[in-house]
Amino acid sequence: MKLKMPIIIVNYKTYSEATGKKAVQLSKAAEDASNESGVSIGVVPQYVDIKSVCDAVSIPVFAQHIDPIVPGSSTGHVLLESVKEAGAIGTLINHAEMQLKLADIETIVARAREAGMVSVVCTSNAAVSEAAAALNPDIISLEPPELIGTGIPVSKSKPDAVTKMVALVKHVNPSVVTLCGAGITKGEDVTAALKLGTMGVLVASGIVKAKDQRKVLMDFADALSETM
Amino acid sequence: MKLKMPIIIVNYKTYSEATGKKAVQLSKAAEDASNESGVSIGVVPQYVDIKSVCDAVSIPVFAQHIDPIVPGSSTGHVLLESVKEAGAIGTLINHAEMQLKLADIETIVARAREAGMVSVVCTSNAAVSEAAAALNPDIISLEPPELIGTGIPVSKSKPDAVTKMVALVKHVNPSVVTLCGAGITKGEDVTAALKLGTMGVLVASGIVKAKDQRKVLMDFADALSETM
Amino acid sequence: MKLKMPIIIVNYKTYSEATGKKAVQLSKAAEDASNESGVSIGVVPQYVDIKSVCDAVSIPVFAQHIDPIVPGSSTGHVLLESVKEAGAIGTLINHAEMQLKLADIETIVARAREAGMVSVVCTSNAAVSEAAAALNPDIISLEPPELIGTGIPVSKSKPDAVTKMVALVKHVNPSVVTLCGAGITKGEDVTAALKLGTMGVLVASGIVKAKDQRKVLMDFADALSETM
Amino acid sequence: MKLKMPIIIVNYKTYSEATGKKAVQLSKAAEDASNESGVSIGVVPQYVDIKSVCDAVSIPVFAQHIDPIVPGSSTGHVLLESVKEAGAIGTLINHAEMQLKLADIETIVARAREAGMVSVVCTSNAAVSEAAAALNPDIISLEPPELIGTGIPVSKSKPDAVTKMVALVKHVNPSVVTLCGAGITKGEDVTAALKLGTMGVLVASGIVKAKDQRKVLMDFADALSETM
Repeated sequence: MKLKMPIIIVNYKTYSEATGKKAVQLSKAAEDASNESGVSIGVVPQYVDIKSVCDAVSIPVFAQHIDPIVPGSSTGHVLLESVKEAGAIGTLINHAEMQLKLADIETIVARAREAGMVSVVCTSNAAVSEAAAALNPDIISLEPPELIGTGIPVSKSKPDAVTKMVALVKHVNPSVVTLCGAGITKGEDVTAALKLGTMGVLVASGIVKAKDQRKVLMDFADALSETM
Repeated sequence: MKLKMPIIIVNYKTYSEATGKKAVQLSKAAEDASNESGVSIGVVPQYVDIKSVCDAVSIPVFAQHIDPIVPGSSTGHVLLESVKEAGAIGTLINHAEMQLKLADIETIVARAREAGMVSVVCTSNAAVSEAAAALNPDIISLEPPELIGTGIPVSKSKPDAVTKMVALVKHVNPSVVTLCGAGITKGEDVTAALKLGTMGVLVASGIVKAKDQRKVLMDFADALSETM
Repeated sequence: MKLKMPIIIVNYKTYSEATGKKAVQLSKAAEDASNESGVSIGVVPQYVDIKSVCDAVSIPVFAQHIDPIVPGSSTGHVLLESVKEAGAIGTLINHAEMQLKLADIETIVARAREAGMVSVVCTSNAAVSEAAAALNPDIISLEPPELIGTGIPVSKSKPDAVTKMVALVKHVNPSVVTLCGAGITKGEDVTAALKLGTMGVLVASGIVKAKDQRKVLMDFADALSETM
Repeated sequence: MKLKMPIIIVNYKTYSEATGKKAVQLSKAAEDASNESGVSIGVVPQYVDIKSVCDAVSIPVFAQHIDPIVPGSSTGHVLLESVKEAGAIGTLINHAEMQLKLADIETIVARAREAGMVSVVCTSNAAVSEAAAALNPDIISLEPPELIGTGIPVSKSKPDAVTKMVALVKHVNPSVVTLCGAGITKGEDVTAALKLGTMGVLVASGIVKAKDQRKVLMDFADALSETM
């Protein structure tokens, strides 16, 4: 895998604060924070912005989703090859806001593997994480849906869910890296996530909707740097 | 509406021959054919390629789909605002390969109207076209699913379906422009479409998968030019 | 159409209070209220309960949904023929909790028509109702999703939406009967619905979740009876 | 679990030959074959027919699908409680013709477990089967989609896929029973399935579409009986 761990992955969702030119600006701020801290930071812009972001920065860029398709007659679908040619090195799969059929997750993870792209499967609880681990993705990120966007950090409010997820994933497939997300807004939430056995966090509103995105990025990166 | 009629709209789907750099090349060929013939040609690249295409050409660019969302927490979805900022002037809606719920079509058409973007609703038969007309889109394009990609032109094999569609749409909503598509591979298919009362064609493999894309584009544009 | 207007249609959803034996009991109460008042009352039990209900009562029974399929390899789908053989005389289509693709609504309405079954298309606003009218169903029922289950009656809180819907539907297709629903809990809400030009109401929790289902049924039927 | 192994499970899909009264007749034939052979046979009628079938026979009856819902406002959805009250003792989950999101499979399996109902998760390949095993269902049935309805038996044409599936499932979760299906039309296909390590077959058209359903049922049951 092309990624250095631990890592902070920032999901831009479809937030205004991370669309178009603002997606490029935020990605530059993430690159600065990564360079200053020595910590790995990846970004996940909207499809339309992938190329602009990849052209502007050297940090890892992910797609928010790809479809289980090969090139052909699939109007409106997202093709791995288009995302890869634009410069993305991986993709989220099965985010809580873009949930997929089991067979499609398997297809997409397999396609990503063949194409040398990093697969990040998002899961909602420990049992689903264990199932996902059997599909052999690179990364599994646990995000309890009820905490997304709440500011209540999964790493603090559901530490047992995270440690259980880490244990189950390792049991099924020790090569899978685990992350966690949902409600992460402070450096200490990131530190807590690492202490529970994960290799980093998947974060969205905590950074994108912050008054000072750059400051929160540095706060997160510093917290991660101290645990390394 | 910002479009000059009649028009040829070229849907790139997720074809290899119209992905990434090839999407830009094909768009330049379309622009050349448009300039040489004086005929309006629009292109519909994948999301990831919208900005590169818009930066490279001045002809109308459409998205293949947008989701019925506003900015916010919608990972993996396609936001009108991102597509518009990248330079697209409109979007396909409800393509046979990306069919939508009735209420979502209504929402997307309304969002496009507010944003000043051209809405092109694709439909599968005359009754569905009539229903779509009630939602007040700019354009309705009839594409019988059973003919898509076959090389059997709708304008020749189902002329009655096209004239019925045109009549029903006009009856419900005279301001809606009608197109047709599916199986269009030759200039004479385009001419036939115009004679049935449409204002142009929505075409995909007929151009994208052609051995000589540029030649077919000119063939289509010349056919359309002669009918003007 | 086999139905006498005006009508009260009671959607059992998947409420515990209207599942299995309780579905049969509620249907008998509806039949009693219909017989006593002379008002038409239809019921919409879960698939599993359709036959038991049809065997127990003589009032009109509807399915909550059918799929756009013909007999064959469609595990888990709902076949018109099975619903009809069990005794249902019609079906809801596109309920807010079971929204469908536009092309599928067209297919289901056409299948219902061929099979002599009553089609009741549910819609979320006036524009969607107008589109649905073009598909030529027997009945269109307007249910603003934001009012479903609230106890705020559509007939009182959104009278303009109802009258606009009725007018648009009549304009496109005068043979379509209009109903309205959402938030209906009292006889006076039913009376208000009739005064707005509809031929009755589609109601769910207002009756199913009532402390005394039988009493509310009689209250609704009496209100309707007075307007006849 | 309430089932005796090995087992033949017959999926009625939405076949005309197994709808309504014909569903009851076929179920009686299955009961006869089970009684005569001493072999366990389960049947999977459409929702509407579950109660009639359960009232007519004593063999195990399954639903074709249930939705990941609790009682409430879910028009058109299939509620575990309604299926159970009608007499079903279990349900198929994630059939190739009714594929589900990963998180929904987890929810449905967990609901079935709590309710004491048998969960039969259908899977398309060995990797997906392994993932499903982590969700702790009672039964996993491998059905390669490309063989469904072909008459090419999975147990003969893809023996390696079946043995791999059995091994992976046992590795993740030894308590899960494995079946296989697709293309099973003869007793010898059933025997082959058992020899590959499964505990039986999930069959549909092989029995439902047979000229003499009763004869094929006995042929299957005899084959299974000989291996016991």
